[in-house]
Amino acid sequence: MVRLPHSWFILCTSSELGDKPLARMLQGSPLVLFRTAEGKPAALADRCPHRNVPLSLGRVVKGQLQCGYHGWRFDSSGQCRAVPGLIGEPEAKSRCATWHATREQEGFVWVYSTPGVEPSHEPYRFPLLDAPGYSTVRRTLRAGGSLHALLENTLDVPHTSFLHGGLFRTEKQRHEIDVVVRRSAHQVEAEYIGEPRPEGLVGRLLAPGGGVLQHFDRFLMPSIAQVEYRLGADSHLMVTSAMTPVDDWDTLVYAVVTFRLPLPHWLIKPFITPVALHIFKQDARILERQTETIRRFGSETFASTEVDVLGPSILRLMRQAGREQPPGSLEVQETRLKMQV
Amino acid sequence: MVRLPHSWFILCTSSELGDKPLARMLQGSPLVLFRTAEGKPAALADRCPHRNVPLSLGRVVKGQLQCGYHGWRFDSSGQCRAVPGLIGEPEAKSRCATWHATREQEGFVWVYSTPGVEPSHEPYRFPLLDAPGYSTVRRTLRAGGSLHALLENTLDVPHTSFLHGGLFRTEKQRHEIDVVVRRSAHQVEAEYIGEPRPEGLVGRLLAPGGGVLQHFDRFLMPSIAQVEYRLGADSHLMVTSAMTPVDDWDTLVYAVVTFRLPLPHWLIKPFITPVALHIFKQDARILERQTETIRRFGSETFASTEVDVLGPSILRLMRQAGREQPPGSLEVQETRLKMQV
Amino acid sequence: MVRLPHSWFILCTSSELGDKPLARMLQGSPLVLFRTAEGKPAALADRCPHRNVPLSLGRVVKGQLQCGYHGWRFDSSGQCRAVPGLIGEPEAKSRCATWHATREQEGFVWVYSTPGVEPSHEPYRFPLLDAPGYSTVRRTLRAGGSLHALLENTLDVPHTSFLHGGLFRTEKQRHEIDVVVRRSAHQVEAEYIGEPRPEGLVGRLLAPGGGVLQHFDRFLMPSIAQVEYRLGADSHLMVTSAMTPVDDWDTLVYAVVTFRLPLPHWLIKPFITPVALHIFKQDARILERQTETIRRFGSETFASTEVDVLGPSILRLMRQAGREQPPGSLEVQETRLKMQV
Repeated sequence: MVRLPHSWFILCTSSELGDKPLARMLQGSPLVLFRTAEGKPAALADRCPHRNVPLSLGRVVKGQLQCGYHGWRFDSSGQCRAVPGLIGEPEAKSRCATWHATREQEGFVWVYSTPGVEPSHEPYRFPLLDAPGYSTVRRTLRAGGSLHALLENTLDVPHTSFLHGGLFRTEKQRHEIDVVVRRSAHQVEAEYIGEPRPEGLVGRLLAPGGGVLQHFDRFLMPSIAQVEYRLGADSHLMVTSAMTPVDDWDTLVYAVVTFRLPLPHWLIKPFITPVALHIFKQDARILERQTETIRRFGSETFASTEVDVLGPSILRLMRQAGREQPPGSLEVQETRLKMQV
Repeated sequence: MVRLPHSWFILCTSSELGDKPLARMLQGSPLVLFRTAEGKPAALADRCPHRNVPLSLGRVVKGQLQCGYHGWRFDSSGQCRAVPGLIGEPEAKSRCATWHATREQEGFVWVYSTPGVEPSHEPYRFPLLDAPGYSTVRRTLRAGGSLHALLENTLDVPHTSFLHGGLFRTEKQRHEIDVVVRRSAHQVEAEYIGEPRPEGLVGRLLAPGGGVLQHFDRFLMPSIAQVEYRLGADSHLMVTSAMTPVDDWDTLVYAVVTFRLPLPHWLIKPFITPVALHIFKQDARILERQTETIRRFGSETFASTEVDVLGPSILRLMRQAGREQPPGSLEVQETRLKMQV
Repeated sequence: MVRLPHSWFILCTSSELGDKPLARMLQGSPLVLFRTAEGKPAALADRCPHRNVPLSLGRVVKGQLQCGYHGWRFDSSGQCRAVPGLIGEPEAKSRCATWHATREQEGFVWVYSTPGVEPSHEPYRFPLLDAPGYSTVRRTLRAGGSLHALLENTLDVPHTSFLHGGLFRTEKQRHEIDVVVRRSAHQVEAEYIGEPRPEGLVGRLLAPGGGVLQHFDRFLMPSIAQVEYRLGADSHLMVTSAMTPVDDWDTLVYAVVTFRLPLPHWLIKPFITPVALHIFKQDARILERQTETIRRFGSETFASTEVDVLGPSILRLMRQAGREQPPGSLEVQETRLKMQV
């Protein structure tokens, strides 16, 4: 599986990280998060360098993390600051715990995947969080599939009429549409042109002035999947999913839904979560069985067609990053295709 | 463990395969079975070539198997016949699912172990199914042991007085008997000569005209174990077990008991299943512990004596077939030995 | 992990080994124990050489162990003494089961780790079992940690104020003490000089005549951890733990507590077990998490300071024995250090 170095991932929400150490896994590596005396998040490898007990078993003392076995204490940079019983200085290079850079912004705690370095770039910022007229719903989800499988699933159009049959599109009435794909060094985007608008009452409610449906699916390195819908001047919906590879076969999804709709938001909000959860549950079930099958066969072998619009590009970008290859051209390359929805 | 290529195995009974896809495992490989529009069984590797979701999660549409994720559809030869969303032909070599030859006969669905080929020989046929005066009882069993361990166990005489003590033979009264072993390229047979007849009422009921007890144990490649008893002119019993290696440590047994006895069959039938299940349960328990021990020690090392009449020969034939060696001479080689029962 | 050849380990207490075979694991190898006709303990590899069924599934017949599958029978030296059905002698080298030397003393059954050899040395003898004025409490415990982790934990001073905070020492009032470490070829001992005596009522009860507290921690090859306390002329406590590595991550502890105290022993005995169990439970929990972390990270990497007084020496002696290196000098090497307790 691909491991992504030099990447920011959300490890928890701000409210999940309180006074106690919090055990988390990132790309198969156990980490422990805690807050310093100033309230800033810190992240260390979840193993005391002394006797390899998980530091998450201990407690936070004066903003330092104290191991529950012998009481060794570590600061946010992994420096050992106390060795009970020892006469002399506790600091020593061999006693350092592995540390990771952290950031806290927009209610999330981000951790840098490569340990021991100060990153040269900052984490992703979610769009429209404070935009006037927009509302936001957040939700943390988890599925038993690889990061790539979840990213592709989130940004894939053809599976919706099958797996979520009836909810989105139906198999019966097919329309031929155009797809424009734009690839660059750090992202891939698909624009779907000519998709039919919702009919009947729903269409009139969402776009009372009429108008065209715009639909974009985007992948932003290393792990953001974004689905954007616009309908006329009044309806705008963005579902941004920041994904965290727990290990090769388990992925956390920090989903942020931002929307502006010509209906009272208090009326809509109660429906967004259950509908999204229903869809996610169907996807999660398939992804789990996909994972199980890949593990049973010992490998994955994918046959793609051109209607697998983003999946292969996402995998290519991830593999490049995994090999620490320099990113390709920043120029946007545009290609077009036709598909049925 | 030995994998047997170019072999027919029963994967299910005819009645188990209905409208829905059926997931089965053969020698560690997941397969999916379904029926074509004509009702014929079909078998594919249980993995969609597109995104590796198990095809058994999908459904049968017009005799083709439709994947539950994106709706790709496959016929009985593994050919891809539909890719929803794609404009253009769905057929392409890279989109083919792996297929296996199948046969349906005598109420069983057989699948050929080597994929992608049309076999040059037909599956085994059970004896006496339609013979006048004979009755048949069928049963599917499962045990946590290797194919070889189950075959040997089914055809082994010495363990019966211990494991099934009292039911068959007893440790107390031992008789010396002759055994004739006949080996050829595709089978091994042991004939037990001089075994004592059942005494008392049971003996008089089974052989009212008296007569000699005849007992044969047979192994037929690749996985049939057959036990045959004749007593006088009137009693004849054959237990034919067609075994299916689910994986290295798990075996399915499709047992067919055919018999003609000088007693009303409606009177006997109710006893056959519970007695056979009792014996099988004792064997299955031992086989499971044997498997566990072999796995714990990391290997099997067997010390045999001449009263392990068939086991070593079975293993030799299986290994030859596993290495795809040409079978040995068709001529029958006969050897003799003495043992106590 | 270190495997220790040519070492005696306790496999069960005398009373655990009765008429029936007893399955045990030593350093990852399954063994079966039984008693001969004379009542002496015997130990064989728990796998019948015939068809690899565990011999512990069988029963003891006339002091021989009979396999439950085909009834092969083995004596205490692993010699095959019966093959039911076979005409001729059962004895044959290929039919032998692997045997281990055994001893029974002081209520314990010891087994020699290297199979097939008669040891040149005898098992450890517990001290003071019959000494006048002493009482003994025994207990078998089990923890999910390596032999080395348990030995070090049992003989480690600094963790007590954290893990068992309050029970022994406290973090608040620290005293600087001297430690004398004595290393030789087969043991390591730490003597703690200047430890504060218990205060108040407890101190007056344990040492009515006053006096100095003496404290020794000892490791005796291959797996004995001994903690000894003396207080004045009247109080003497020895906790001797003979440990048995079940496998790399699981250890049995046969603990023998011997004591002489200036209080009625019937009054003290009821308290020893619950207090010891409470401490052991805290240790076992940490050791299990340590094991889990080492397995998750795939290796152990320990950073030690001089207050890890015995652990590194124990590991060195164990590794030497594991490599079957000749032991070092029998001369005692003494070093001194200071620590805070």
